[in-house]
Amino acid sequence: MSTKPTLNTVLSPRLLDIYDVKNAIVVVIDVFRATSTIATALYNGAARVIPVDSVDQCIAIGQQTGGITAGERDGKVIEGLSYGNSPAEYPRSFIEGKTLVLTTTNGTKLLHMALKNGASEVVTGSFPNISAVCGYLVAEKKNVILGCSAWKDKFNLEDTLFAGAVIERIKEHFTIHCDSSLMAEDMYKLHKNDMFSFIRKTTHWHRLAAYGMESDLEYCVSPDLANVLPRYQNGDLVVDN
Amino acid sequence: MSTKPTLNTVLSPRLLDIYDVKNAIVVVIDVFRATSTIATALYNGAARVIPVDSVDQCIAIGQQTGGITAGERDGKVIEGLSYGNSPAEYPRSFIEGKTLVLTTTNGTKLLHMALKNGASEVVTGSFPNISAVCGYLVAEKKNVILGCSAWKDKFNLEDTLFAGAVIERIKEHFTIHCDSSLMAEDMYKLHKNDMFSFIRKTTHWHRLAAYGMESDLEYCVSPDLANVLPRYQNGDLVVDN
Repeated sequence: MSTKPTLNTVLSPRLLDIYDVKNAIVVVIDVFRATSTIATALYNGAARVIPVDSVDQCIAIGQQTGGITAGERDGKVIEGLSYGNSPAEYPRSFIEGKTLVLTTTNGTKLLHMALKNGASEVVTGSFPNISAVCGYLVAEKKNVILGCSAWKDKFNLEDTLFAGAVIERIKEHFTIHCDSSLMAEDMYKLHKNDMFSFIRKTTHWHRLAAYGMESDLEYCVSPDLANVLPRYQNGDLVVDN
Repeated sequence: MSTKPTLNTVLSPRLLDIYDVKNAIVVVIDVFRATSTIATALYNGAARVIPVDSVDQCIAIGQQTGGITAGERDGKVIEGLSYGNSPAEYPRSFIEGKTLVLTTTNGTKLLHMALKNGASEVVTGSFPNISAVCGYLVAEKKNVILGCSAWKDKFNLEDTLFAGAVIERIKEHFTIHCDSSLMAEDMYKLHKNDMFSFIRKTTHWHRLAAYGMESDLEYCVSPDLANVLPRYQNGDLVVDN
């Protein structure tokens, strides 16, 4: 009889409520680019990242906290905000010690859904912090939900590939009865050696590469370039010191 | 500039309304076992299959039409109905000329959602009738939605594999900007030569094989053993004579 905790993969925010998040660590995954940027800002010394749903809220919280406001639509900084969604915008020389108030389309939505559904814990993951995520999940020995943020609720490949990469690394520590997880691991194994070329076939690549973000997207699928664990605590994403 | 119709794959009924079904042929896919059984019954000469949502409706319509009532839960014929969901129960010697009234958990639900959302046309597909489905989709030159019935809204592999098999065969006739379709084709190509062993890893296999349905499940992933095209017309699934 197995006493291992369970691991499930959720392919869209629309499917989240099928799963029991109350007894699980939810890993919010938004590879292009929210959770890659969150890891990067925190790795480079940001005091915290505040994920917000709307532009108005981003501006309001930016004013309250003196934080940097950030968000993009269609590859441009949103009017009223100061910076974009690119991890390259947040080097240590700029972001260290500061608060980043970030609004995104998909990642923030899933994060707030997970909280609303009573997730016992929320962390964020992407390739730049994959080892930190995996190490934490193995150490905690709790049930895990790998939550793909998707694109406006549509399945996407980049978040699935990250779920698969995590599963490949940590699966022996979990009980996995989940076709989404089987698929994610297969897809990751199939493409882990041609990641840069494969992501050029995804719909998100076509959407973002049109805005000249090729190097951003390659960074977002490169492991451990910003290897910290962002954890949600009282409205903020922070890392342990 | 491409004038090809579009093809999209929908991985769960929960995601159906993201897509424009009004201008598309929706292929309802429920490999284990509803759409495999539907193809088989019609191939073996059933006059029609009436897909219904509930057991009560199944009994009522069975009485009205003099049809055979069928449906299972947990591998047993539902109380009040006469037969199960296995394609093996519907040989020509039994089903020819008859009406089959079938209630299932997932396939029927997606079919009725597609109709409610205004799908311009609904057909059903599974491996036993894959060539009929592909031939029809290519000939019609309309937008296509491959609709996976999933399992209680959860992603499943067997329906995805069928979507991938269809895509592999007909993709040059369509414009495909859809990560679900990319993934489905990859998964099918990865497993087309080990289908019988791969399906033994799926959650559905574990659910059904416990009831001794191994040969059923292998039949359901075997191509062209019941190669007809079930089309929905006025409440019935029928094939052209």
